Amino acid sequence: MSEIVDNAQIYRVELADRSYDIHIQPGCLERLGQAMETLFASPTRCMVVSNVTVSPLYMQVVRNSLEQAGWQVSECILADGERYKTMESFGLIMDALMQHKLSRNEPVIALGGGVVGDMAGFSAACYRRGIPFIQVPTTVLAQVDSSVGGKTAINHPHGKNMIGAFYQPRLVWIDPLVLNTLEVREIKAGIAEAIKYGLIRDAGFFTWMQQNARAALDLDAGVLAQMIHTSCRHKAEVVMADETEQGQRALLNLGHTFGHAIESMTHYSTYLHGEGVAIGTLMAARLSEQLGHAPAGTEDLIRACYQSIDLPLEVPGFSAEQWLDAMGHDKKNVGSRIRYILLRGVGDAFLAEDVSPDAICQLIESYRKG
Amino acid sequence: MSEIVDNAQIYRVELADRSYDIHIQPGCLERLGQAMETLFASPTRCMVVSNVTVSPLYMQVVRNSLEQAGWQVSECILADGERYKTMESFGLIMDALMQHKLSRNEPVIALGGGVVGDMAGFSAACYRRGIPFIQVPTTVLAQVDSSVGGKTAINHPHGKNMIGAFYQPRLVWIDPLVLNTLEVREIKAGIAEAIKYGLIRDAGFFTWMQQNARAALDLDAGVLAQMIHTSCRHKAEVVMADETEQGQRALLNLGHTFGHAIESMTHYSTYLHGEGVAIGTLMAARLSEQLGHAPAGTEDLIRACYQSIDLPLEVPGFSAEQWLDAMGHDKKNVGSRIRYILLRGVGDAFLAEDVSPDAICQLIESYRKG
Repeated sequence: MSEIVDNAQIYRVELADRSYDIHIQPGCLERLGQAMETLFASPTRCMVVSNVTVSPLYMQVVRNSLEQAGWQVSECILADGERYKTMESFGLIMDALMQHKLSRNEPVIALGGGVVGDMAGFSAACYRRGIPFIQVPTTVLAQVDSSVGGKTAINHPHGKNMIGAFYQPRLVWIDPLVLNTLEVREIKAGIAEAIKYGLIRDAGFFTWMQQNARAALDLDAGVLAQMIHTSCRHKAEVVMADETEQGQRALLNLGHTFGHAIESMTHYSTYLHGEGVAIGTLMAARLSEQLGHAPAGTEDLIRACYQSIDLPLEVPGFSAEQWLDAMGHDKKNVGSRIRYILLRGVGDAFLAEDVSPDAICQLIESYRKG
Repeated sequence: MSEIVDNAQIYRVELADRSYDIHIQPGCLERLGQAMETLFASPTRCMVVSNVTVSPLYMQVVRNSLEQAGWQVSECILADGERYKTMESFGLIMDALMQHKLSRNEPVIALGGGVVGDMAGFSAACYRRGIPFIQVPTTVLAQVDSSVGGKTAINHPHGKNMIGAFYQPRLVWIDPLVLNTLEVREIKAGIAEAIKYGLIRDAGFFTWMQQNARAALDLDAGVLAQMIHTSCRHKAEVVMADETEQGQRALLNLGHTFGHAIESMTHYSTYLHGEGVAIGTLMAARLSEQLGHAPAGTEDLIRACYQSIDLPLEVPGFSAEQWLDAMGHDKKNVGSRIRYILLRGVGDAFLAEDVSPDAICQLIESYRKG
């Protein structure tokens, strides 16, 4: 499923008629137009969805490449940030698609991080009941996680990603060089998502991340490339086994039950998604220890890895009631139970549906004490 | 694919893991709760989406049936009419689903006509990236057409059904007795959609409709039942052959390119969908004659059938430019061409992508002259 061509690493996500390639190659951004040739019979119209931060940096390169390949390019530029991942922004993309009269076989290209990819993907899923969609991720988080697998969504004021679709891209086009302009805070948050794969299913990769997270933060090209390759391989394997999260895909949500609650309780304006997930992962690790699933020291091991890249790790001081209420709206909740991803140890995650509210209160209490 | 059990006609729509039954039976509304037993392991929460017209008539019957089967029922009641098939109404349904904390395996039940079904279905498709969805259609149009096949959508101010999803219901539960409370105007509009199947693919059924449309309008139980059965069979056959409208499903849009333009130009407030489609079908028939595809007299034959149930048939007096502009936004438009469904004769429709704007101007001109 993986091959190397001209310094490019290519993974094929096999999903029957929804299969697609993940193409990872330094400098490939300026060759996006050529990539489109293999996907479309002839160039017509396309729309690039981006945000006010990414667009000034990379829109011109993308536009030039597409126009040279014969495409008529329109743009939809959104505000930057998770708090704009709303019904309103979704409406703006729809208006732009209508205004430029994109037809059923003309693609949307997401140029940006996870927020842009999620919104552009959901818009592509809904416009005319689905038009083609291409991911060009520009953050670590999007390159190691959110651009692969077809989860698209917007937030509801009362819950993250509550409105969305499973809708696969036709291509994921990853240029690690674009990370050179990324804010340090964004890089850290993305590395936390890469570490997640180690915790869930690959203890060896966690060990490697313990040794290399700092180099990734310093944008060491070799380390970044290997981190992205390994992460995409894990993500692709999980998605191929369980596209719509009936089973093992749920394990990728390690740290997300708590993490989404953190984002929601702070109105998506204080924490980056990866930051919320890092804190949430530590909480899940402590809960795993308290319930006797994971050996003592598991949380500390993970904390040390996060600390090596200076991630913010303090658990925000909400009451247990606030936590439970925020998590009751989490979409991983089945029936009236809240679903947690817990650890038996590094590299071994599992789904727990029998965690009592008392156990959560005790967990929250342990942070409030000290 | 069809069987008769206890006076119920059941069609199976075979779509791999998205297969479902269309259950047609007089009086079955009060047995909806029993039907749910075969679909869900145990009753939990569900939400019935309806409108201010249908809810006072049938909500209590549905609620009683569901509650007797052990379901905890919440309601979301919308305004009545195509002009409310908007992003705002979609937001209201999302708010209600969030408020009642429906989880991933708890169903939405659409109790109403095509507008309710389209909006509730699209909401079920998007909420938590998809929850189960059941169609309980209460209009002729919804029973013969829109409740089957998984097309869900809301309108954009500039185009009908431009925001939506292909999302199949788990069950279509049709009680023809509910039509007894339907306004005559709604019955006529629905019969027009049934006639459509005859025009597209079943000349014998068109002949039968010529003879029986009036009796259907008078709510003759036997005629209604046969009209619904035959329509659902045709719809199911087409959907099974082409779920996402890559080919022959497009033929079901006979009259819709013009019809959607009529609805859009009159802001969804003047014509019922079926009324717009009836006028649009006559326009498509005249265009077919003008282009030499259909024999002279085809339009008159169809007109006479519509006239037997007193459908409004006057083409609204917009300019050719207005028509073309409104149709340029139609989602059946591929590339820059507008797609029309034309007739070679009764029972034989085909897709034409090479109709020139001049031909449309000539068609529109023919109505403006007199």
